[in-house]
Amino acid sequence: MVLEVAVLSVRAGESAAFERAFAEAQPIISSMEGYISHQLHRSLETRDKYLLIVQWRRIEDHTVGFRQSAGFQEWKRLLHHFYDPPPVIEHFEAMSDHSTK
Amino acid sequence: MVLEVAVLSVRAGESAAFERAFAEAQPIISSMEGYISHQLHRSLETRDKYLLIVQWRRIEDHTVGFRQSAGFQEWKRLLHHFYDPPPVIEHFEAMSDHSTK
Repeated sequence: MVLEVAVLSVRAGESAAFERAFAEAQPIISSMEGYISHQLHRSLETRDKYLLIVQWRRIEDHTVGFRQSAGFQEWKRLLHHFYDPPPVIEHFEAMSDHSTK
Repeated sequence: MVLEVAVLSVRAGESAAFERAFAEAQPIISSMEGYISHQLHRSLETRDKYLLIVQWRRIEDHTVGFRQSAGFQEWKRLLHHFYDPPPVIEHFEAMSDHSTK
């Protein structure tokens, strides 16, 4: 499993509209081959900054499958105009996962 | 619940030693009041870069409880000499959490 981590800087004052657009766009990413799950988080220190974490089966499910899909064009149309600067995206592999539960 | 997200830049060539030290340090954070879980991830693009995600019950469990504990001094002693530059730490609240499962 691979984590896509995207830092999303939303234009000032557009957070509510971004969150509505993200709710609309969610089914696009969650219907992709290799998609496992995703979480959207909002920064407590910088309120226009979000962190999108997507779990993919393999990195290519994101970098090839998703990005070359027709759905990605719609995803960009719905979301990318909110971002300034453009999203910073990086991939991670899990080293350890611990919990008290 | 609040997410602590720490970007950890480990000195070149010290990744294996950092991972051993992190394994040793883990029980310190997981024994803290308000700790829920944590995951350590390693970047696929920048191999000396790690992402530590810690779930806390409240932000103060991290910023006050953990940072003012005796355990935090030991945590720093074990880990902070690996980092250059110092860790960048930010807190996030969950907006949405979705999965195909």
